[in-house]
Amino acid sequence: MTSPEYASHFSLANIPFGVASSPKHVIQCATRLENTVVFLGVLQQAGYFDGLPGLPSDIFSQSTLNEFAALDKSIQRGVRARLQDQLSKELPSGSTEEISAVTMHMPVSVGGFTDFSCSLHHVRNAGRAILNDETPPPGFFNFPIGYNGRASTVVVSGTPIIRPKGHIADRTATTEKKPISFGPSKAMDYELEVGVIVGKSVPRDNGVNAIDADEHIFGMVILNDWSARDIQGCEMVPLGPLNGKAFGTSISPWIVTLDALQSFKAPGPTHNAILANHLEDIASAESSYNISLKVELMANGQIELVSQSNVRDLHWSGRQMIAHVASCGSDLRTGDILGTGTVSGPEQGSYGCLLELTNGGKEPIVLESGLKRVFLEDGDVIQMTGIAGKDGSGVGFGECVGQLLPVL
Amino acid sequence: MTSPEYASHFSLANIPFGVASSPKHVIQCATRLENTVVFLGVLQQAGYFDGLPGLPSDIFSQSTLNEFAALDKSIQRGVRARLQDQLSKELPSGSTEEISAVTMHMPVSVGGFTDFSCSLHHVRNAGRAILNDETPPPGFFNFPIGYNGRASTVVVSGTPIIRPKGHIADRTATTEKKPISFGPSKAMDYELEVGVIVGKSVPRDNGVNAIDADEHIFGMVILNDWSARDIQGCEMVPLGPLNGKAFGTSISPWIVTLDALQSFKAPGPTHNAILANHLEDIASAESSYNISLKVELMANGQIELVSQSNVRDLHWSGRQMIAHVASCGSDLRTGDILGTGTVSGPEQGSYGCLLELTNGGKEPIVLESGLKRVFLEDGDVIQMTGIAGKDGSGVGFGECVGQLLPVL
Repeated sequence: MTSPEYASHFSLANIPFGVASSPKHVIQCATRLENTVVFLGVLQQAGYFDGLPGLPSDIFSQSTLNEFAALDKSIQRGVRARLQDQLSKELPSGSTEEISAVTMHMPVSVGGFTDFSCSLHHVRNAGRAILNDETPPPGFFNFPIGYNGRASTVVVSGTPIIRPKGHIADRTATTEKKPISFGPSKAMDYELEVGVIVGKSVPRDNGVNAIDADEHIFGMVILNDWSARDIQGCEMVPLGPLNGKAFGTSISPWIVTLDALQSFKAPGPTHNAILANHLEDIASAESSYNISLKVELMANGQIELVSQSNVRDLHWSGRQMIAHVASCGSDLRTGDILGTGTVSGPEQGSYGCLLELTNGGKEPIVLESGLKRVFLEDGDVIQMTGIAGKDGSGVGFGECVGQLLPVL
Repeated sequence: MTSPEYASHFSLANIPFGVASSPKHVIQCATRLENTVVFLGVLQQAGYFDGLPGLPSDIFSQSTLNEFAALDKSIQRGVRARLQDQLSKELPSGSTEEISAVTMHMPVSVGGFTDFSCSLHHVRNAGRAILNDETPPPGFFNFPIGYNGRASTVVVSGTPIIRPKGHIADRTATTEKKPISFGPSKAMDYELEVGVIVGKSVPRDNGVNAIDADEHIFGMVILNDWSARDIQGCEMVPLGPLNGKAFGTSISPWIVTLDALQSFKAPGPTHNAILANHLEDIASAESSYNISLKVELMANGQIELVSQSNVRDLHWSGRQMIAHVASCGSDLRTGDILGTGTVSGPEQGSYGCLLELTNGGKEPIVLESGLKRVFLEDGDVIQMTGIAGKDGSGVGFGECVGQLLPVL
């Protein structure tokens, strides 16, 4: 399920990295220029990367980008420059295919998936919706709050998501202790996030400062942290989310590098709290990115805009997430994904999940066509996308899409 | 750091599996008979496993047990029977070494680490210590409560643990919101656990019933879930533990198979709650194991017993942990580890962590020699061990040991 409608996201200014296959091409690393997928394993064998210092031979013939992502940025930049130089010229026959003819795969093998809660707007909105209290969690302003997700259930865009079963408390019960039963989730939600893909690893007991952490970020993807709110609500006390978020987490297939995003830096948030040294970020004027995000719902044959937000509204950066994980002595491995948590803005149209949009499932949203939703219905398709800067910037993420299928 | 003192744990009735190397042997799969390590890669090349149906050639020359653990139990039993038959005879020269001459490595590559809270005694004791309320979490009797840990920081016994830094709230402050600062943990603890190693994988969206889940358990290890209580306390609301448990989790190097534990089945707990079908366990009379666990503290040149407990006191089984993870549609991969959570009994001498033993850090424990501890001090060595049945049963886990080193 790959869409040609995002051609404009993939100009020569982008040069994203992904993993693709087709009936004509074995699975290998790839890039995309407009709607053309370029098979990098083929290009490398044809000598297109010859002379680039430090680039291992056959690195693009592999079925994940991990080995490439682990390299020094200087080597990755050499590849990017070579591609920007060559992709506008004629490429060898057999090295390209139309996007509609290829299958996209997980771009990296994911060893760890840690999901954070970096948006102040999200925690305020969600707090108000669930607890009628918008006070952020106690540590929110001191460090990025997060939990470890299940790395094995991160899937590539297009993979169907099956409505999960789980333990659910009957909140309508009048007893103090709400009875718990097992059954299909009735509160299926998405979360609009960005996933930071770890490039060069951080060794155990090494630590890394946020200001130096871009060196460890290979790039970013759009991430949909599908959430079963009723299962999550029943299990979160006291150890946090487990099964309510472990039945599938979708990522967009093309990793957009920090080099591609370089021109779209934007001012970050104001931190009023005194931060630990390792969390001090780069100068606020350029500590964030201007990336517009969008959620669309496809149902009954229609596509409808649900909400829009922007990465620059996050309170914590990808660099700070990395610095926080490493600060206790933990390593980070190439291919690890750190999710930002739901990217929300301050107003209704910018809320990044249904929990916020429906005030905790109490007030349905009504879309343009009159379609109403409290939570997702079977068959609903959620499509997320992101573009750096303005429409037409030439640097975007394409789509992260998934359809909710009925319980098995 | 491997100890010869556990020879009696490794009789012919055990036949555990691990990964070992030495100056004379490249890293490979191994078993242990008393204090002799038997290199299985060497045995396989010498034809010792010839004729066993379904056993891939060179499977024991690998540097992890994952591929072997993924096989059908019938094949693993064939290997076990062959070893029980052959190990009492003379083995080829070069296939064995003394335990003191080898280095033990991580037995499996760990793709996922999910830690549970399976002990009713632990949650009651910890609740009383922290909140002065021993009511278990809301879902405790309905399903095993757990969180995902950081798989990359699971380390083999003997690996030093460095005191982590993290964000800590000043609980002595009189303000309602306690100020948070970053620094070395002052509340270092261990947790006495058993780790269940996943054998044959469970596919995504497949599910598995607890009564069938032994097929997916390769075996068990002793697990020390090192915990920085002050960091954990500052970060757990609302997403659960992250950095307070991500600086190192130790496991014992020898995986004891369910076949070896077969003779030590024991009655499990009474479940008063009505369980979901997939959580219904095998007949209570044999749903647990009689495995005695022990924690010792080595400090000032002395070894002192700290506490003792037993796996049969757990409220949830390994089978039920697997069934719970799979119930939402999640896969389980070979080599995944599911921790039981702290194994505690009802009385003071059976509490599986210092948090419980010291009533939340309020009352120091006094050991035999007069040594006192509230939390761990730099240089302290924690040694855990477990034996199935009575001392002398011939089936044990050896040691899971780690020394706490000063903050970097």
